Amino acid sequence: MSSRFQVSRALVIYVCFFKGAEEDLLPKMVSTLLNVKLSETENGKHVSILDLPGNVLIIPQATLGGKVKGKSMQYHTNSGKEEGLVLYSQFVTLCEKELAANSKWAEAGMVVKHGTYGNRQVLKLDTNGPYTHLIEF
Amino acid sequence: MSSRFQVSRALVIYVCFFKGAEEDLLPKMVSTLLNVKLSETENGKHVSILDLPGNVLIIPQATLGGKVKGKSMQYHTNSGKEEGLVLYSQFVTLCEKELAANSKWAEAGMVVKHGTYGNRQVLKLDTNGPYTHLIEF
Repeated sequence: MSSRFQVSRALVIYVCFFKGAEEDLLPKMVSTLLNVKLSETENGKHVSILDLPGNVLIIPQATLGGKVKGKSMQYHTNSGKEEGLVLYSQFVTLCEKELAANSKWAEAGMVVKHGTYGNRQVLKLDTNGPYTHLIEF
Repeated sequence: MSSRFQVSRALVIYVCFFKGAEEDLLPKMVSTLLNVKLSETENGKHVSILDLPGNVLIIPQATLGGKVKGKSMQYHTNSGKEEGLVLYSQFVTLCEKELAANSKWAEAGMVVKHGTYGNRQVLKLDTNGPYTHLIEF
């Protein structure tokens, strides 16, 4: 089964969990990602995605946990597939809850969309300047 | 001045230099990035961009060096603008040289393109599964 969707202007979150990542990390991750001022308003001011308000697109991206070993990438420090799926699902749910609980965000008709854990994610991205950050927890 | 270009299937390299980065790091960076097996052949085998062979797109991305501080991002650990420009330019030149020196790559008519340091990079990206890695040197 595959699904295809489109979001207009959005914060794109690529998520990867390392071995040993635990559920109690999730609230801090979600809170930081939704509140950090990464989005630019029309006036060039930086605000959070909650304050913009803007859409959120979450993409599972286990490859982020890879390490170069010789000419190959190894993924030994990533969480196992089952743990990773649980953490990813909880992360998505928590994002959805925190966004929905913000009345400004919710009333603006914004959406949160997410990719499917463990599947190849086909993506078209159109940016007005990629503005990529790395946030480790 | 702005320029617009399009590349077909490519390895996209986002580069950020931290404070203290030095020129003698560049050959290792370039060699690793061009030789690590990150590209998938039609048969699903992973090979380097030199062996694929495929195009290379280099994008300066200083935001990668940001750290969350409260609700803002700070970029204090990034290299200064002038040093960053020198390193970025040398990195691009070295990639171009190493790619051109590989006869298989060069004969396949592949190209290397790069964004302009210090400018906003407008990007459209179309991926058959984003496959994002983080390699620190």
